[in-house]
Amino acid sequence: MAELKTGGAQGYLRIATEEAFAPPEMMAAYVEVLDGQNVDPGFESLMGFYMRHKSERATNIFRRLQDLGAERLADMDARGIDRQVIGVTAPGVQVLTKDKATALSVLANDQLADACRKHPDRFTGMAAVAPQDPAHAAKELERAVKKLGMRAAVINSHTHGEYLSDQKFWPILEAAEALDVPIYLHPQTPPKAMIAPFLEAGLDGAVFGFGVETGFHALRLIGSGAFDRFPKLQFLLGHMGEALPFWMYRLDYMYGAGLKSKRYPFQPQLKHDVSHYLKHNFHITNSGVAWEPAIKFTQAVLGEDRVLYAMDYPYQCPPEEVEILDRMDMAPATKKKFFQTNAEKLFKL
Amino acid sequence: MAELKTGGAQGYLRIATEEAFAPPEMMAAYVEVLDGQNVDPGFESLMGFYMRHKSERATNIFRRLQDLGAERLADMDARGIDRQVIGVTAPGVQVLTKDKATALSVLANDQLADACRKHPDRFTGMAAVAPQDPAHAAKELERAVKKLGMRAAVINSHTHGEYLSDQKFWPILEAAEALDVPIYLHPQTPPKAMIAPFLEAGLDGAVFGFGVETGFHALRLIGSGAFDRFPKLQFLLGHMGEALPFWMYRLDYMYGAGLKSKRYPFQPQLKHDVSHYLKHNFHITNSGVAWEPAIKFTQAVLGEDRVLYAMDYPYQCPPEEVEILDRMDMAPATKKKFFQTNAEKLFKL
Repeated sequence: MAELKTGGAQGYLRIATEEAFAPPEMMAAYVEVLDGQNVDPGFESLMGFYMRHKSERATNIFRRLQDLGAERLADMDARGIDRQVIGVTAPGVQVLTKDKATALSVLANDQLADACRKHPDRFTGMAAVAPQDPAHAAKELERAVKKLGMRAAVINSHTHGEYLSDQKFWPILEAAEALDVPIYLHPQTPPKAMIAPFLEAGLDGAVFGFGVETGFHALRLIGSGAFDRFPKLQFLLGHMGEALPFWMYRLDYMYGAGLKSKRYPFQPQLKHDVSHYLKHNFHITNSGVAWEPAIKFTQAVLGEDRVLYAMDYPYQCPPEEVEILDRMDMAPATKKKFFQTNAEKLFKL
Repeated sequence: MAELKTGGAQGYLRIATEEAFAPPEMMAAYVEVLDGQNVDPGFESLMGFYMRHKSERATNIFRRLQDLGAERLADMDARGIDRQVIGVTAPGVQVLTKDKATALSVLANDQLADACRKHPDRFTGMAAVAPQDPAHAAKELERAVKKLGMRAAVINSHTHGEYLSDQKFWPILEAAEALDVPIYLHPQTPPKAMIAPFLEAGLDGAVFGFGVETGFHALRLIGSGAFDRFPKLQFLLGHMGEALPFWMYRLDYMYGAGLKSKRYPFQPQLKHDVSHYLKHNFHITNSGVAWEPAIKFTQAVLGEDRVLYAMDYPYQCPPEEVEILDRMDMAPATKKKFFQTNAEKLFKL
C-alpha cells in the first residue's frame, strides 16, 4: 500500500464529511435508556451492540466514538484525512426524552466546538439538535452556527417514529435555510412500526435497514412539499444517497403516476418531479461506499458538484478504502471536487 | 416517434420478461378478501386502488390485467414487443387462504398455459405457486413446467409476512433447481409488521415500498444460506434488481462485518460475500426503469449476461420507453443480449 499523507500532495486535500463522535455524557444517557423499560428495538439492536458487545468491532468503535483528540488525529494521519466534518453519532439525542435531548444537544455542541477550536485545521462541526422540541432545535442551530462556528446540522433520521415531513418540525428547516447551512440526514435504525422483519433477519442496521429508513425519510420530506416551501434548503445524504440516485427514474414515474391519479388524497401536488429535488436540494456523500462505479454513476446523474467524499469514521475506516478512491479513474478536476472543493463550498471552509 | 414493429428489424427481438396478468377468478377471490375482516393493509392499498379506484390509471390496468388475447396482443404490436414472459400479478395467490391459494394457482396455470398454446410465438408462461403449501407448490411447479411448458415460477415476495429464507419453503427452491427453471421474485407491498410508516406517506407501493420489500426478501434469502444449499438456483429481480446492484459494496462490507463480529448469532456463516450470490444466482430486469445509466451500471457490475429487458405491462407501458431503450448508446451485441438472447437462454425459448 502507498503511504497515505495529509497535506494535499496528491493534488487535493481529503475532507471526510460524515464522521461521528459521541459525548461520554450521551453514552451515559444511552445506558439509562438501554436499562429502562420499553426500549426502542432498533436502538437496543444498534447501541446494545456497539456499547456492550465484546467483539473487536464493537469495542474499538465504542472507544473511538468518544475521542476528539489524540486517537482520532492519529487515525486521520494514518489514513491521510486532512479534515473531518463531525456530527453526533446515530441516533444522537433523538432517542431521549425531550428535556434530556435538548440539554444534551447543547452539551454535545459545546464539546464539539471546543475540539474544533483546538484543532481548527482538522475538525469542522455539525450541530446536534433535538427535534423533540423544534423551537429549541431551531434556536440551538442558530447558536451553534453563529456562536460556535458550526457549518451544518445533523439529524439522525426519525425521532421516536416521526419524520421531518411533519410540519411541526419545519422551524428547523426554516432556520437551516435562513442560516444557509445544510442538514445532514444521517441514518438510524427503522422505527418500531417498521423494524420487526428487519430484526428477524439481522438486517436492521447499516447493512440495509439504515438505507431503507433514511431513503424513506428523504422521500417523505420531498413528498411533503418541504422543498417547495424552502427552495434553497440543502440536505446531505450519505451512503451514496441511500440509493435514491439509482431509484430516480422509477421515483419520477411512480410518484408522478400516484399524484396524477390522486391515489393518496393527502399528498400535496409538487412543483417538480422527485428527481428535481434530488438534483437541487441534496448533496450525496459516499460514506461506506468506496466504490468507483457507484460514485461515478451518482456524479453522472446528479452532477459532479453534488457528490462528496466521506469515510464514516469510526464505523468504517480501512486505509485501503482511501487508496482505492485515490486511484479512481477520474479527471483530476472532478476528483478534487469530490475530495475537497465541494465540501469547502458547502460547509464554507 | 419512430414506428415500433415486431419482427426484429432493429437487429433483435424484444422479449419483455416481467409482464402481468390476473385470472378473473383470482380477482373475484380478491373481492372477497377486500370485503372481509382484517384485510392486509398493503393489499387493501394496492388492490383496493387497482380494482376500485375510478382513475384512468386504475381502470385501464384492471381491465388489461385480465386479458390474455386481443387487447394484449394489440398493445404488444403497438409497442413492438415480440414476446411477453407472463406471470400472475402481485400479490398472486399469496394473500389468500391455503386452500384457495392452491386451487387458484392451478387454475391460473391452466389459464395461462392455454393462452400460451394459442399464441406460442408471443407468450411464455411463469407458473403461479402457493407457498402457503410448500409441498403443493413444488408439485404444481413440476406440473407447470413438465406438463404445461412453463419456464419459470413467479413468487410475489412475502406470503402472509413469511419469507423464502424460512426453510419450510425450501421444497419450492429445491424443485426449481431440479427443474432448472428460475424463480421471479416479484414485489408486493411490505407486510403488516413493516408497512405502517409507508402507508402514512403514500410510499407503500411501486414507488418505494415494493423495492424495499423485495430487496429485503432477496437479502434474507441470501443470508439464509439458500444458495449454498442450492448453488445452481437462479432468481430474477425486476426494477433494476430492486437497487441491490447499487448497494453491493456496502452489503459486502456490512454483512461481512456482522458475520465476523457474530452480532446476530442466528445468522449462518456464508460461503461467499453477498455480491457473489448476486453475480451467480440472480438475473436482473429493468422493469419500470427505462433508464440507460442504471441499465449500464448493472451490466457493468453484474455482467451483461445477467441483465434482461422487461416492460412491466400493464402497470407501466408507454411506447416511448421502448424507443428510449432502442436508442441506448450500447454495443449492438450487448443490446441484443439485453432485449433478446439473455431471455432466450434463461427461459429456454
